[in-house]
Amino acid sequence: MNQDIFLVGSGLTRFGEWWDKSLKDLMDEAIKAALRSSGLSALEIDLVIVANMLAEVTNNQAGLGALASALLPHHPPAMRVEAACGSGALALHTACAFLESGRAKTVLVVGAEKMTDVSMDVISQALMGAADAELDAPSGLTFPGIFGLVAKRYMHEFGLTREELSIVSAVHHRNAAENPFAQFRTELSPEAVSESPLISDPLRLFDCSPVSDGAAACILSTSHKSPLRIVASQIASDTLSIAERPTIVSFPATREAMNRALLEADVERRDVRVVETHDCFSIAAVINMEDLGFAREGEGIKLYEDLYEGRASLFVNMGGGLKACGHPVAATGLKQLIDVGKHLSRASLPYGLAHNFGGAGATCGIHIVQNANV
Amino acid sequence: MNQDIFLVGSGLTRFGEWWDKSLKDLMDEAIKAALRSSGLSALEIDLVIVANMLAEVTNNQAGLGALASALLPHHPPAMRVEAACGSGALALHTACAFLESGRAKTVLVVGAEKMTDVSMDVISQALMGAADAELDAPSGLTFPGIFGLVAKRYMHEFGLTREELSIVSAVHHRNAAENPFAQFRTELSPEAVSESPLISDPLRLFDCSPVSDGAAACILSTSHKSPLRIVASQIASDTLSIAERPTIVSFPATREAMNRALLEADVERRDVRVVETHDCFSIAAVINMEDLGFAREGEGIKLYEDLYEGRASLFVNMGGGLKACGHPVAATGLKQLIDVGKHLSRASLPYGLAHNFGGAGATCGIHIVQNANV
Repeated sequence: MNQDIFLVGSGLTRFGEWWDKSLKDLMDEAIKAALRSSGLSALEIDLVIVANMLAEVTNNQAGLGALASALLPHHPPAMRVEAACGSGALALHTACAFLESGRAKTVLVVGAEKMTDVSMDVISQALMGAADAELDAPSGLTFPGIFGLVAKRYMHEFGLTREELSIVSAVHHRNAAENPFAQFRTELSPEAVSESPLISDPLRLFDCSPVSDGAAACILSTSHKSPLRIVASQIASDTLSIAERPTIVSFPATREAMNRALLEADVERRDVRVVETHDCFSIAAVINMEDLGFAREGEGIKLYEDLYEGRASLFVNMGGGLKACGHPVAATGLKQLIDVGKHLSRASLPYGLAHNFGGAGATCGIHIVQNANV
Repeated sequence: MNQDIFLVGSGLTRFGEWWDKSLKDLMDEAIKAALRSSGLSALEIDLVIVANMLAEVTNNQAGLGALASALLPHHPPAMRVEAACGSGALALHTACAFLESGRAKTVLVVGAEKMTDVSMDVISQALMGAADAELDAPSGLTFPGIFGLVAKRYMHEFGLTREELSIVSAVHHRNAAENPFAQFRTELSPEAVSESPLISDPLRLFDCSPVSDGAAACILSTSHKSPLRIVASQIASDTLSIAERPTIVSFPATREAMNRALLEADVERRDVRVVETHDCFSIAAVINMEDLGFAREGEGIKLYEDLYEGRASLFVNMGGGLKACGHPVAATGLKQLIDVGKHLSRASLPYGLAHNFGGAGATCGIHIVQNANV
C-alpha cells in the first residue's frame, strides 16, 4: 500500500429475509450505521463505491452508484463494482486504489443485495450469471450443481467422507449463534447436516449458504485514522468457466491473491490468526483452507476438525461465515472485513484476513487487516 | 492527474445488430483490435476493467471481469464497473485511479453490450434500471418517456420548436456516414426526423438512440506512450430519480464534472475543439451543450444550427453520436474517447473531450484528451 488506509467505520443490517425493506432501505441502514460508528459527517465522504451483483434482475435496478450517492446530502461521485459473489472485495480493492491515487481521502463502500423478492427459479438462474453463460449454463448446471461436482471430485481425490464434510457447517453455525447480524443463530450438529435434504449430490441443504437480503458498509480513509489498518489488498482472476480449468479441487486465484497479499503486507502466514473465508458451500471452505495455505492439500478438513474440537490456533468465520451469517452476495466481502476487524479487536490479535471470491473461484479478493492496538 | 496516462491502443466492433456474435465474441473482437493498434503483447496488460450495464438481463451473465480476463493468456486481475449508460466513462475513470495509484501500469478497459437478443419489452424494462425503481418506474415511465418529459419542459421554458430539435439527429447522421463502425450510415433530413413515428411526445423515433450490440476497448498506460494523453478524468453524481431534482432541463452532474475537468486539465473551454457528447435522445445533446458551457442556457440548439450549416468552430459527435453510431450502452463511453482521439489526430487539434452520462444525467464522466502532435 502506498498510503496508510484505515477502516474508520462500519455498519451492517442483520442478514435475512427482509420483505418490508427495499434495496435502498438496506443500503441506507448500513450506511447510517457506518457513519455513526465512524463519528464522521456524511459530508466527509468523497467517493461512494457500491458492490452489487443481482439488482438488475432482482430489483430492476442499475445505476446503484447514483442511487447510494443520493442517500448522502452532497451526492458525492459514485459507481458500482461487480465481480459476482466477490463484488464486496473488489469494491474494497477499488476503494484502496482511489485512496492510493489521491483522488479520494475518505471512501464509503457499501455492498447490498435484495434476493428474496423473486422466485427461487429466478434467483438460481441469476446466480448462474457467476458462471460462463456459454460454457457452463448450457449443461443445466446451477451453482449447487457446480459445487456438487467440486465436492464429488474432491472426495474422489482425497477420500473426504460425507460425515467429515458435515463438520464445516456445524462450526459455522456455532460461531453464528452469538452474532446479532446473522441470518441463522441456531446451532447445528454434523448429523443434522448429513441428514438434511439432498440438493446436489453429495451436497445437502445445510452445506449451502442461503439466499439472503442484507447490506454492509465500510468507510476507508487516509485522512482519518483508526486502530484497524488495511495492509494488503490483492485480487486475482481465473477462467469464469470451470470447463476451462485443469482442476476443480483447488482455486488458483486464491493462491495467487494470497501470495501477493502476504508479500504486500510483509507478514508471515502464521501471524494471520483471524480468517473470514468464502464458504458459499461447505466444500469451498475446505478447499480455501488449503489454497490459503492454512492446511496441506487434501487436509483442509483436519483444520475444521480442530476448529470443531476447539484446538485450532486459527479463528475462522467467527461471524458464522456465508452459511450461517447469510450470503447477500455483494455484501459478503464487506461483512467479512467487518467481522475480521471485530474479532481482531475482541481477541487482541494483530493480523486478520478476509477472503472473498466470485463464481467458482473465478475472481478472488484478499484483504489483510492489522490491529495497531496489539 | 498525478501520472501521465496515455491512450496507447483502441479497438471497436462495428455497432449494430450482431445476432451471430455473443457478448464474449464482441469483447474479444474489440480487445484484439485494441492490442493490435497498441503494438503491445497481451501479457503487458496488468488489469482489465469491463464496462457493462445489462448482461445479467440480456445474457444471464455476471462476473464479466473474469470473463474478459480469460480472453487474455495470463488471466490478469479484472473487475466490472457499472454506472448505467455512463459505465464506459466510469470504467475509464477507475482505470485512471488504478494507474495513478501505481497498482497497474497498463490497463485494458473494455465496454460491451449485447442488447438485441431479447425482446423490446425486456430491453425497455432493463434500461429503466437506469432510473429509480422505487420513484420513477412505478409511474410507468420508460427512458423515452423520461426524455419526452425533459423535452416537453425544455420546449416550455425556452421555446424550442419541434422543427429545430430535428436538426440534432440530422447532424449526427451526417457525421456517421463516413464512420465504418457506425450502426446507421444513412443521412437523415430534419424533415425526416420530424415525420418519423411518435415515440414519446414530443420525441419521435429518429430522436432516440437505437438498441445496439457492440464493444469498444481502450488501453491506457503509464509505462507506454502515445501522442494522446488523458489530461482530466472527472465524475459527478446526481439523484438517480428525476423526481428528486429541482429542474429537468439541465443536468448538474455534467456542470460539476466539466468544471472539475477543466481545472484538472488546466485548459480553457475554448481550447477544447472536439467534443463527443451523450445524445441518448436529441434533447439531451441540446442540454449537454449548455451544461458543458459551449452554449448559453436555452441556446444549445443555436450551436446545432451552426453545426448543421457548417459554421461552428466546434466539432461535435464526429463519429455520429449515440443516435447514428449506435448505443451499446456501456461501450459508448469508450467509443467516445476513441472517436475524440481519432478526430484530434485527423484535424490536428490539441484538446478534445468525451462526455458520457448514465440515467437522466445521474452519473456523469468527462475525459479530456490532449494531442501532443499539435
